[in-house]
Amino acid sequence: MSSWQPIYARRAERMKASEIRELLKLLERPGVISFAGGIPDPELFPAAAATQAYGEVLADQAGASAALQYSVSEGYAPLREWIAGHMAGRGVPASADNILITSGSQQALDFLGKLLLTPGDTALVTAPTYLGALQAFSAYEPRYDVIRPHASNRTPASYADEAAKATSGARVKFAYVVPDFANPTGDTLSLAARGDILDLAAELDVPVLEDSAYSALRLEGDELPALQAIDAGRSGSLDRSRVIYLGTFSKTVAPGLRVGWVCASRAIIGRLVLIKQASDLNVSAINQMVMHRLVEGGRHAELIATARAHYRRKRDAMLGSLEAEMPSGVSWTRPEGGLFVWATLPESMSGAALLERAVEEAKVAFVPGAAFFHDGSGANTIRLSYSLPQEPTIAEGIGRLAALLR
Amino acid sequence: MSSWQPIYARRAERMKASEIRELLKLLERPGVISFAGGIPDPELFPAAAATQAYGEVLADQAGASAALQYSVSEGYAPLREWIAGHMAGRGVPASADNILITSGSQQALDFLGKLLLTPGDTALVTAPTYLGALQAFSAYEPRYDVIRPHASNRTPASYADEAAKATSGARVKFAYVVPDFANPTGDTLSLAARGDILDLAAELDVPVLEDSAYSALRLEGDELPALQAIDAGRSGSLDRSRVIYLGTFSKTVAPGLRVGWVCASRAIIGRLVLIKQASDLNVSAINQMVMHRLVEGGRHAELIATARAHYRRKRDAMLGSLEAEMPSGVSWTRPEGGLFVWATLPESMSGAALLERAVEEAKVAFVPGAAFFHDGSGANTIRLSYSLPQEPTIAEGIGRLAALLR
Repeated sequence: MSSWQPIYARRAERMKASEIRELLKLLERPGVISFAGGIPDPELFPAAAATQAYGEVLADQAGASAALQYSVSEGYAPLREWIAGHMAGRGVPASADNILITSGSQQALDFLGKLLLTPGDTALVTAPTYLGALQAFSAYEPRYDVIRPHASNRTPASYADEAAKATSGARVKFAYVVPDFANPTGDTLSLAARGDILDLAAELDVPVLEDSAYSALRLEGDELPALQAIDAGRSGSLDRSRVIYLGTFSKTVAPGLRVGWVCASRAIIGRLVLIKQASDLNVSAINQMVMHRLVEGGRHAELIATARAHYRRKRDAMLGSLEAEMPSGVSWTRPEGGLFVWATLPESMSGAALLERAVEEAKVAFVPGAAFFHDGSGANTIRLSYSLPQEPTIAEGIGRLAALLR
Repeated sequence: MSSWQPIYARRAERMKASEIRELLKLLERPGVISFAGGIPDPELFPAAAATQAYGEVLADQAGASAALQYSVSEGYAPLREWIAGHMAGRGVPASADNILITSGSQQALDFLGKLLLTPGDTALVTAPTYLGALQAFSAYEPRYDVIRPHASNRTPASYADEAAKATSGARVKFAYVVPDFANPTGDTLSLAARGDILDLAAELDVPVLEDSAYSALRLEGDELPALQAIDAGRSGSLDRSRVIYLGTFSKTVAPGLRVGWVCASRAIIGRLVLIKQASDLNVSAINQMVMHRLVEGGRHAELIATARAHYRRKRDAMLGSLEAEMPSGVSWTRPEGGLFVWATLPESMSGAALLERAVEEAKVAFVPGAAFFHDGSGANTIRLSYSLPQEPTIAEGIGRLAALLR
């Protein structure tokens, strides 16, 4: 080719490397204490159970034939049934027809961007929000507008008006939220804020994408109802609900099998099945069958109980060290669950500049917060994950970081 | 939601269910002899080796931690290395940097549509072509124009002119071909036709997407060079080649692991890695590690040798029965490999209407050919796959079908 540039689609301009994933490659140096990752602790992976499950699935010829073959785009029926039961446990009246199996919930974000966004349409997001959602949506060339669930003075009409300015026919297409222990802030939406978001979405008549990646990892306090449960109650059924729920086994079982799901109105599931067909046909059949064995019969609840106790110790270690070591001028969130603490540095300080110093001088790593803002703001914020290091290492790392800031 | 319709993206109009996949659900009735599938014979799946490989990968803690964790979007390095070696065996001077692992080659089709197509751009395809490619591309709203590799009287300028008529800035973006034992026709491009396509692409300065899904399943005759091998020779290196090669283990090992690859210039791989990140992060790590074990050390060649002998017997059974049973007025291809025979019925006859009769009256199924044409033509064609039934069943099924046509 003389040049690839003229051959790329217009949307390619919006595709950027994830700073975090690029960072991760650099930070795997020995001796660096990393709060950057945000991936689950492999100590929790059910390796022995997985070995047994793969063996069982492949043991008889009919099972092996199904596990190693193409399969239906909707997903493995017994797993969809199990997930429908799991959703019922969250107060969502789902049947298997309301479930599509996806390659992790990242793929659901991509599919929903593909289904809903015409270039110029507006996606409502929080600022900061999950970086991977911005990456998935941006391929479909939306504009972003910001919802502030706990402190909004914007009217629904103001969102609609802003969206209509973009191009002919452009409008708000959805609101995306991570209501429980959000990546990157660790924040949880109050019951009132959940109601407010549903009110806003109802006023605009748009769907709400509820990214529930971390909801199972509650470390303290009472569970709050899923937006989808509230909305199915309001509208009378899941098929009439505007909430599209994204679930995943990546944080509770293991990400390596790439199994997540969408729970939604059958109308939406039908559309997403077409997208799944055209995108990669189906999630690995063997992994779906194995995942079903890893979660059925109460095993999912056991895995979650173990994970909660594990991450609670780590979170407490981080919060304790922050409290003991950090100078005034630095503030941070106190997450009730999930994997992240979000810290705000003094106004004039740059998280990116601090990272450079931290890796060089203190051998400590984290993620600068600006990456999580669609507009590149948030320069003085950082994300600290406690998921991977052991407790004494967490204390050591926070101590070193605090020393840099004093 | 009051109505989902206004919320869908414009592209949703182009998303249709695969007739084939819908058909497959109906045709799994007992007693029906199905030539519809086109999926590999599960008898060939290396179930015992897979059991062993999953066990080995999960046996030690470091291996299990990597297999069950998130992993890099490019893919598992040892598998990329192996594939680079495999491509070298096909005459393509590839290194691991030229390889991206995808969820089957279907995902590569989706990613290339995403990377290359702005709405209104033109994709050059054969008619008929692989239905899944049309589904993947159509989400990005292209126009199609037809290349006829063995009988073209069109100039390159005529393709460029047609494409430019669509919208401002629209142009031909790529040519998509399945050069070996194509789905649905079973046809193989001659060496001269391969050169012609590369000439056309060079004249238009566009990439060629070489879908190599069936190339390993040669049942007779000599292997022809990959378009990518020819073009890398012409241009001096793979990084300067315009050919983007799509490979898969689905037809030679097993589709259930969802492991395929793209081999291309590093510039293209870099772009596709960004798309992989945003779309679903990475292919299941455990499946990539297992696939590596299933193919390394000469095992891939052994699997291919077994598959070739297996499908050769089935193809010969089908061709023999067609020859013996079909009335005049019906013609068919004689594939040198792959899984498909393509039959042309008398002009006035409809493949779809024949299917209805065949299922009802003869308990035989196949796929009507019109599904494989971007413009719905080809009404009097049908696709017959010999991959699943045993030889006596193939003879029985073709006999029943021929009786309907006499």
